[in-house]
Amino acid sequence: MGYLVSVVGGGQLARMMAQPAAALHIGLRALVEADDGSAAQVLPDSPVGFPADLDAMRELTRGADVLTFEHEHIHAETLTALENEGVNIQPSAQALAAAQDKIHMRRVLSEAGVPCPRWAAASTAEEVREFGDEVGWPIIVKVPTGGYDGKGVVVLDREDGEGWHTVAQWLNSPRGEVLAEEKVNFVRELAALSARRPSGQFVAWPVVQTVQENGVCSEVISPAPLTDEAKTTALRIAHQVASTLGVTGVLAVELFEADTGALLVNELAMRPHNSGHVTIEASRTSQFEQHLRAVLDLPLGATEPTCDHAVMVNLLGSTLEEPRAAYPEVMRRYPEAKVHLYGKPVRPGRKLGHVTITGNDPERMLARARAAVALLRGDGGAATGEDDARQNARTGQKEIA
Amino acid sequence: MGYLVSVVGGGQLARMMAQPAAALHIGLRALVEADDGSAAQVLPDSPVGFPADLDAMRELTRGADVLTFEHEHIHAETLTALENEGVNIQPSAQALAAAQDKIHMRRVLSEAGVPCPRWAAASTAEEVREFGDEVGWPIIVKVPTGGYDGKGVVVLDREDGEGWHTVAQWLNSPRGEVLAEEKVNFVRELAALSARRPSGQFVAWPVVQTVQENGVCSEVISPAPLTDEAKTTALRIAHQVASTLGVTGVLAVELFEADTGALLVNELAMRPHNSGHVTIEASRTSQFEQHLRAVLDLPLGATEPTCDHAVMVNLLGSTLEEPRAAYPEVMRRYPEAKVHLYGKPVRPGRKLGHVTITGNDPERMLARARAAVALLRGDGGAATGEDDARQNARTGQKEIA
Repeated sequence: MGYLVSVVGGGQLARMMAQPAAALHIGLRALVEADDGSAAQVLPDSPVGFPADLDAMRELTRGADVLTFEHEHIHAETLTALENEGVNIQPSAQALAAAQDKIHMRRVLSEAGVPCPRWAAASTAEEVREFGDEVGWPIIVKVPTGGYDGKGVVVLDREDGEGWHTVAQWLNSPRGEVLAEEKVNFVRELAALSARRPSGQFVAWPVVQTVQENGVCSEVISPAPLTDEAKTTALRIAHQVASTLGVTGVLAVELFEADTGALLVNELAMRPHNSGHVTIEASRTSQFEQHLRAVLDLPLGATEPTCDHAVMVNLLGSTLEEPRAAYPEVMRRYPEAKVHLYGKPVRPGRKLGHVTITGNDPERMLARARAAVALLRGDGGAATGEDDARQNARTGQKEIA
Repeated sequence: MGYLVSVVGGGQLARMMAQPAAALHIGLRALVEADDGSAAQVLPDSPVGFPADLDAMRELTRGADVLTFEHEHIHAETLTALENEGVNIQPSAQALAAAQDKIHMRRVLSEAGVPCPRWAAASTAEEVREFGDEVGWPIIVKVPTGGYDGKGVVVLDREDGEGWHTVAQWLNSPRGEVLAEEKVNFVRELAALSARRPSGQFVAWPVVQTVQENGVCSEVISPAPLTDEAKTTALRIAHQVASTLGVTGVLAVELFEADTGALLVNELAMRPHNSGHVTIEASRTSQFEQHLRAVLDLPLGATEPTCDHAVMVNLLGSTLEEPRAAYPEVMRRYPEAKVHLYGKPVRPGRKLGHVTITGNDPERMLARARAAVALLRGDGGAATGEDDARQNARTGQKEIA
């Protein structure tokens, strides 16, 4: 048994795995798409290649103890081939299938009695229309595989030319099938983050509230403002999903808290997830460290919070060519903010980084994290005018001279 | 202005700087002695070379915004040459001189009125003897430059053949001078950690207690059990040292709390320091992130503690060829422990890693951190027999299945 984890993907998740890997002296090798990409910047062992290339995947896993993922876009045949060659894959290809294929996910979860929105697999526009007429318009239609961050999802009304055009394109693709779901009226969106080892140990972090903007996570509030009953329900669902699907590593279960009070599973991710970035500062064990421990089948770390509250705000795009140009202002105004930038070139709406603030006044923390992100986004006017000295006094920062 | 920091040294300090550098998207380039050394394992940009080689130092600093250090063993001439070529060096060669040369340090601090043990620079055995007769035996004799971790230090008695032999060797070296100091009777040893920007901003962390074993730091307790008055005095000394010497970056001032109640400066380090490893988990801003911010003259991060207490225990040597072999046991028994291993081959007494535990029961935390380190050291019998389930209940870890 060595301590080398291979990961498919060279984005911010692999980049953030590199930090606990270094602390624990766990080797991390990432298959990256470019040698100057987000993860490659901070990982000496980052071969360039694509997951569809079986030889590149073989090279990636050579001498490694386990293969894992920062995204779900890997062909099932590739995984099966590697599994047949004896590669230890966590989560397994079978488990991962439910994160890769939304129809498969709905089918398996519904069979196991996990609460989901009403759904149907539809192969024709007529089936989509029948489903909408049954559950009420508008509905949500999703491409079964390959979608992410709001891509591959439409909100569809009975009369919606453009939406039906998109659905028709998906139906005409080789798969020839879409997932239709009722549009849930929700009070808020939640995420239940957990981790599971191959040998079965399961731990969960406090359930968080997530805020989405055009289908992309923009903010996270930890813990979510929930009743104890709702918290228990969310954790029970997370455990049920993890054990039903045989998930190993970190599992993020995105949930709707419906206006009926029901908690319904929206999406799954079997890897560290945007909703778990707060765990870097707000938990004894971050999701990134936990994922490494879990896929190596090492005992899991404590998930108790290290603070009363934590908030995270994503940096989605920037008008600054170089968001770091805002560091002097961001760091002067918000000395308590933990800034994470992923080293990615700026593109509109792109996830470039995030800011986390921990403390005991979530409303104020959220205002300050938003203002810090606004500065990184090049929107200086949005920063709060709060006096720095006052903040320094609050954070207990000693400043002499 | 870019964001590339060059650091001399490829040990655990550069390795631990790599983690906040990745989070903040600050480039880090380390001059390492071997391409498989501690820092090189986790830093893609780690040229091999020696600080005595001016060309290697030029290459190291090419395109970098600032040059800094993880140790003090750099020739003054090299630094002067680089400064003359326009390289931004933080801390400056002038400041660093006081960390490099213990006689120079005593001279400058004494002139500035910073409380130190009584001392003398001695060029002959007779001068050493006169000093000892004056302040009382035994005394401490130190080689002025190049000592570290207990090396280059002797406790000398008037009749001590071996000790005098060592001192004679030092006096016969080209420098021809030793530092003689009174042996302070101390209640405990302390470290005051602070950071200062070139533009003057100064912040300090809570003062910690350090425990030494054969001249090597073995444990740190944060905060130190001190009166408010002693805390204030220690911070005032730290500020005085930083401003008197013009230190930039992180400064560790090691102090004796004498049995008279006086606080006396023992040693200085102008870089992240073993006494500050607890800041990774126990402070909003770790010493490693702060050092990067400070040497880049960016606003400093908040230094407020994130927990009531923190303890750190060093792993000094191991009977295990591979301390990671203890991970299953360490992680099972101590899920709350933050384990850091530096990726260095095992050698007797070598600093191989450390374990930090945060919480509100320092005695119990210290017992558990020691037990975790004992397992990593291959001394399984020393682990506490405390029941895991009980601990999991205390840390709030949710374990289902």
